Amino acid sequence: MAEPLRNDRLLRALRRQPVDRPPVWLMRQAGRYLPEYRAVRERAGDFMTLCRTRELACEVTLQPVERFDLDAAILFSDILTVPDAMGLGLHFVEGEGPAFARPLRSAAEIRALPVPDPESELRYVLDAVRTIKRALAARVPLIGFAGSPWTLACYMLEGGGSREFVGARRLRFERPALLAQLLDTLTTAVARYLAAQAAAGADALMLFDTWGGLLDAEGFRRFSLAPLQRLTAELAAAAPGVPLIVFSKGAGTRLSELAATGCAGLGVDWSVSLTAARAAVADGVALQGNLDPTALLANPRAIRERVAAVLKDYGDAPGHVFNLGHGILPATPPEHVAVLVRAVREHADGVAG
Amino acid sequence: MAEPLRNDRLLRALRRQPVDRPPVWLMRQAGRYLPEYRAVRERAGDFMTLCRTRELACEVTLQPVERFDLDAAILFSDILTVPDAMGLGLHFVEGEGPAFARPLRSAAEIRALPVPDPESELRYVLDAVRTIKRALAARVPLIGFAGSPWTLACYMLEGGGSREFVGARRLRFERPALLAQLLDTLTTAVARYLAAQAAAGADALMLFDTWGGLLDAEGFRRFSLAPLQRLTAELAAAAPGVPLIVFSKGAGTRLSELAATGCAGLGVDWSVSLTAARAAVADGVALQGNLDPTALLANPRAIRERVAAVLKDYGDAPGHVFNLGHGILPATPPEHVAVLVRAVREHADGVAG
Repeated sequence: MAEPLRNDRLLRALRRQPVDRPPVWLMRQAGRYLPEYRAVRERAGDFMTLCRTRELACEVTLQPVERFDLDAAILFSDILTVPDAMGLGLHFVEGEGPAFARPLRSAAEIRALPVPDPESELRYVLDAVRTIKRALAARVPLIGFAGSPWTLACYMLEGGGSREFVGARRLRFERPALLAQLLDTLTTAVARYLAAQAAAGADALMLFDTWGGLLDAEGFRRFSLAPLQRLTAELAAAAPGVPLIVFSKGAGTRLSELAATGCAGLGVDWSVSLTAARAAVADGVALQGNLDPTALLANPRAIRERVAAVLKDYGDAPGHVFNLGHGILPATPPEHVAVLVRAVREHADGVAG
Repeated sequence: MAEPLRNDRLLRALRRQPVDRPPVWLMRQAGRYLPEYRAVRERAGDFMTLCRTRELACEVTLQPVERFDLDAAILFSDILTVPDAMGLGLHFVEGEGPAFARPLRSAAEIRALPVPDPESELRYVLDAVRTIKRALAARVPLIGFAGSPWTLACYMLEGGGSREFVGARRLRFERPALLAQLLDTLTTAVARYLAAQAAAGADALMLFDTWGGLLDAEGFRRFSLAPLQRLTAELAAAAPGVPLIVFSKGAGTRLSELAATGCAGLGVDWSVSLTAARAAVADGVALQGNLDPTALLANPRAIRERVAAVLKDYGDAPGHVFNLGHGILPATPPEHVAVLVRAVREHADGVAG
């Protein structure tokens, strides 16, 4: 049996239960801005070796939790592990980001895509989850994650990173039924993958719909939201009680639709105020966010002001998970993250006192 | 005295008056996707020579109007002419975009920035406007344009293009009063520049707030919206009757605030439905948009479907300017633009018949 968590602020906040102060963790908290991360990354040689070696993935997952005493750990991995397990051949080109050796090039390839069995083809991820859970020893919750079906489709059709992802968007216009079929396969794969992470010990799950904002309103409903709806329903059955946070970048106008998927929480980017976001979701889900990551490049005084502004913007109601509105920038000084975490704590002390 | 325009659909739509069909023009309609543009560009040698040579700027401005029989011409120029005239030294690095020889590096430099006199330091732009007006011979309206104060500040503090523009965003957090001072100077400069374009013959004006979406909600109000408000008021006095279209990318949640600036029309990106946008602005302004530019990479059938969907989304009310939700992509086949323009016409014929 799993030991009860000693710090369950994140899980309580995601259930919109009262907490002594908002939990705080940061998207990409394990990453290049940390010298101790860069040292392990260098030891591993390449990025995928880091992901595939459970001890190293565990080490970098724990680094920020230990350095900053954060309220959650998030699995160190990549959103593209699922397409890799489908046979696309993921690798990372230094300075250029992810690339697939075999991007999707035809309808036949889309139709032939297999749904990976997480315990075999993605076993290295689940092994990392189990290793991290042991190492955390119930100190804080562990968040597992995956890319959203639409976001994975963007990369799989493009062959790597992009600003525009014209491949997926063109398919959306030219062959919507084929795109829907691809998303259907991906939804099944991602649901199984996330359920397996929960079974391996993940206490909460997060879905990154990084490129949902590239879709037009109608396309978003059909190609991002509909898959998320099925995914949420399947996870509720396969991993009951494990809260899911959905982060769809640029979804300021779509928060009420996203909240209606049945997820526990929504990640919110900094373009929308948390007051407006709370109104949009009618307090039906928890909200995670939404400090502009560039605020962490500013001086400590400015960081403290902005943390206070975000906390005030959400207000005193339950259901706030303090976070950035997107991933931490590599140029962020680690001491600035310490300033942020302290500011969240002190603000809460001020409120309580 | 100016001859009355033979095609005034754009101006009527911007006043929300009835038209036989929505006017259609496309952001970046004069650009790299056109072989005839690439030929002139090669002749000019570099991009700024093209902008600075009135005959060449006129030639490329007219190319798409002639090829596609569009309802408006837009001045061929660049949003960064204003900072260039302020002494920052604009040049274009092949394949990398714009760069400044002397980006803003200190508070002293910000405070010392001069407001250029358009008729001397930006005379080449006004000469281009006058040349184009003569060449158009009242066939369609000519749109003048400028970058928004916030968007210009982004480039001036960064020294060139960027995905993140951390310079301006960091200043927003660390030294908001200094940023406000910079924006104040830029607002004066842009207002004079646009008024001078109107005086030189521009029939409508457009303001590109390309990077407004990078600001947090509070920052947007202070650093993008407030300058736009002053600018709109000053233009209403300096160029009465010349409608202003404001395009703020990623402003789906900010449309009602933008409409309240008093501009005539709002550019809308494709992330928001025009139905929702109309509701947000309570039909108080015209709306311009909002086809996803990647739709033009799809086949003609798909393009026709999407054009019909955008027209239906706006509905039959007056006040729609058909356009893309962002600039045309360089990979766009010119024949596909012809398909789009024809589809706008045929849809209207179908409605009328």
